[in-house]
Amino acid sequence: MTRKYNFCAGPAALPEAVLKTAQAEILDWQGRGLSVMEMSHRSDEFVAIAKKAEQDFRDLLGVPDNYKVLFMQGGASSQFAMVPLNLLGQGGQANYVNTGVWSKKAIAEAKRYGNVNIAASTEDRNFFIAPSQSELQLSEDAAYLHYTSNETIGGLQFDYVPQVGDVPLVCDMSSDILSAPIDISQFGLIYAGAQKNIGPAGLTIVIVREDLLGRELAQNPTMFSYKVAADNDSMYNTPPTYALYLSGLVFDWLKNEVGGIDKMAEINQRKAAKLYTAIDNSAFYGNPIAIPNRSIMNVPFTLADAKLESVFLKEAEAAGLLNLAGHRSVGGMRASLYNAVPEAAVDALIAFMADFEQRQG
Amino acid sequence: MTRKYNFCAGPAALPEAVLKTAQAEILDWQGRGLSVMEMSHRSDEFVAIAKKAEQDFRDLLGVPDNYKVLFMQGGASSQFAMVPLNLLGQGGQANYVNTGVWSKKAIAEAKRYGNVNIAASTEDRNFFIAPSQSELQLSEDAAYLHYTSNETIGGLQFDYVPQVGDVPLVCDMSSDILSAPIDISQFGLIYAGAQKNIGPAGLTIVIVREDLLGRELAQNPTMFSYKVAADNDSMYNTPPTYALYLSGLVFDWLKNEVGGIDKMAEINQRKAAKLYTAIDNSAFYGNPIAIPNRSIMNVPFTLADAKLESVFLKEAEAAGLLNLAGHRSVGGMRASLYNAVPEAAVDALIAFMADFEQRQG
Repeated sequence: MTRKYNFCAGPAALPEAVLKTAQAEILDWQGRGLSVMEMSHRSDEFVAIAKKAEQDFRDLLGVPDNYKVLFMQGGASSQFAMVPLNLLGQGGQANYVNTGVWSKKAIAEAKRYGNVNIAASTEDRNFFIAPSQSELQLSEDAAYLHYTSNETIGGLQFDYVPQVGDVPLVCDMSSDILSAPIDISQFGLIYAGAQKNIGPAGLTIVIVREDLLGRELAQNPTMFSYKVAADNDSMYNTPPTYALYLSGLVFDWLKNEVGGIDKMAEINQRKAAKLYTAIDNSAFYGNPIAIPNRSIMNVPFTLADAKLESVFLKEAEAAGLLNLAGHRSVGGMRASLYNAVPEAAVDALIAFMADFEQRQG
Repeated sequence: MTRKYNFCAGPAALPEAVLKTAQAEILDWQGRGLSVMEMSHRSDEFVAIAKKAEQDFRDLLGVPDNYKVLFMQGGASSQFAMVPLNLLGQGGQANYVNTGVWSKKAIAEAKRYGNVNIAASTEDRNFFIAPSQSELQLSEDAAYLHYTSNETIGGLQFDYVPQVGDVPLVCDMSSDILSAPIDISQFGLIYAGAQKNIGPAGLTIVIVREDLLGRELAQNPTMFSYKVAADNDSMYNTPPTYALYLSGLVFDWLKNEVGGIDKMAEINQRKAAKLYTAIDNSAFYGNPIAIPNRSIMNVPFTLADAKLESVFLKEAEAAGLLNLAGHRSVGGMRASLYNAVPEAAVDALIAFMADFEQRQG
């Protein structure tokens, strides 16, 4: 077995230690004679696994007591509908910030359920920059303001938390949750698909302030109701139990092996800084994002000669550096540097890039 | 490691051979240097895994070419809303058959989106029997008829497929899909949560006749649209990739180790017949279901003295027979005999029951 370095944007690399624990336990969890996959979600054993996962997640991010942590299904794409269905109210209006592919998808879905005011968009600047606080045009009586803290495809990350007064702030944190500390109390609701920094695809985490529960539209499917999920401790029906177990192993790793979110953020900053420096110090590689908004998690980059892209990808793969192609909608290269991507992977990528430039540049 | 016999109603036992393959591949799938969990769902490798899983599933059940097989999320509980949202039409009406807990849940959700006609209910007979074909009162112009082929909690299974003429037949097959051959062409739509006969929780399979796509209500969330899922080969967004991979291993096992659905049905019939015979030959154990409707998958049974239930469960667990408690809503005992439960497990259960009766009866 040779594990390679995996820069995939999602589903993404998982900590090797987590996979090893899962491997050891997959046929027989802690001597109980069955796999976690084979346990009733209502068994004492699984309920303990779920409770520990939630507590570790709460501890990592310092989630206040007046917030529920929900384990749901369907990815961020389901949240694009759930957020308006649960928060917009009949004939309601919401503010959305447009910073790229993912916020556009959220906006399109929200428009099906109510009125959307685009509080700011940087589409006229190719989404190479995030809007500043002073650019945000907030409509009166908005049910919430929605933004995407990190655009996975564009590699654009907010460097501040929008200040919106009493309006609930809703954030899609799919690709940067758990990468750095956040002050949850500034948010009304946060959601994140698991398959970047949390665990395997198929799980979605929602952090929601309790006073926002119970505002849903009449047509909201029961399984889309935050209140139903909250009232049933995320077990109204069978949750994706194995994904939840694996996510719990990731939280435990982050807490006890890495040493917490502050430590993780320090490592993430260092990884990203190294790679951006390598790009900036070269005329061969480029990244177009405004420096304060460069994503710590997803680093898109171009080659001076686009015809070399396929050679770059092929040689990188041969060198054990996987999944460096940019999103199919934009092309180019992209290195995703999520929590589970070790610093050694970034060092190896930088060395490969330098070598490639020397040979091909 | 000692694997025990697991009679859980779901999430349920998986074939040991499947877990062993997953264990061997969890850190490094076929020498690619990464886990299936860490692969892009759009990579050649994962697309091949998904395509093979779908083809094996189609082969096992003989799914005709004019049916789509969709891999979705959210369990049968999400289907309770998706079915009316996709098929009912504005102000539409549907027929529902009420045979227990799960059909009641489907009915309650459907009522939120249109008119429900109860075509038949055996609630007045404690759900100990399924309605006969002649009892079905079908309303004119119904968008579909919905029934639950196997009630997991009650242990009640239809012994026939309702004949409804041109009305699309919709069936919740969560707990008996892949247990015996079915003629898909009699159905408009079939759905099943994975966590019984398919794979781990978090995946839901929908088989839908193509002409039923595109009838959805305006408020249907994009992620609830069968048409969107079909148009995108179940990859509109990231599917639960690892659950899909594991389900593919189960299909492969069923096809190549067991030898197909006919062979599986033969084994399942034999397992259930043994257990029902043991119950019927004893005055100590009982099962109230009308004999033609006794479930092949879920066998609820009572003890003559309900006070002995906790002793029974405790001793059974000590004997390596896990998860025999009935559903929390009904109590008693229940042995689920899904595909992955070996015949030896049933033999061990029967031997234990005889011994227990001798000591306690």
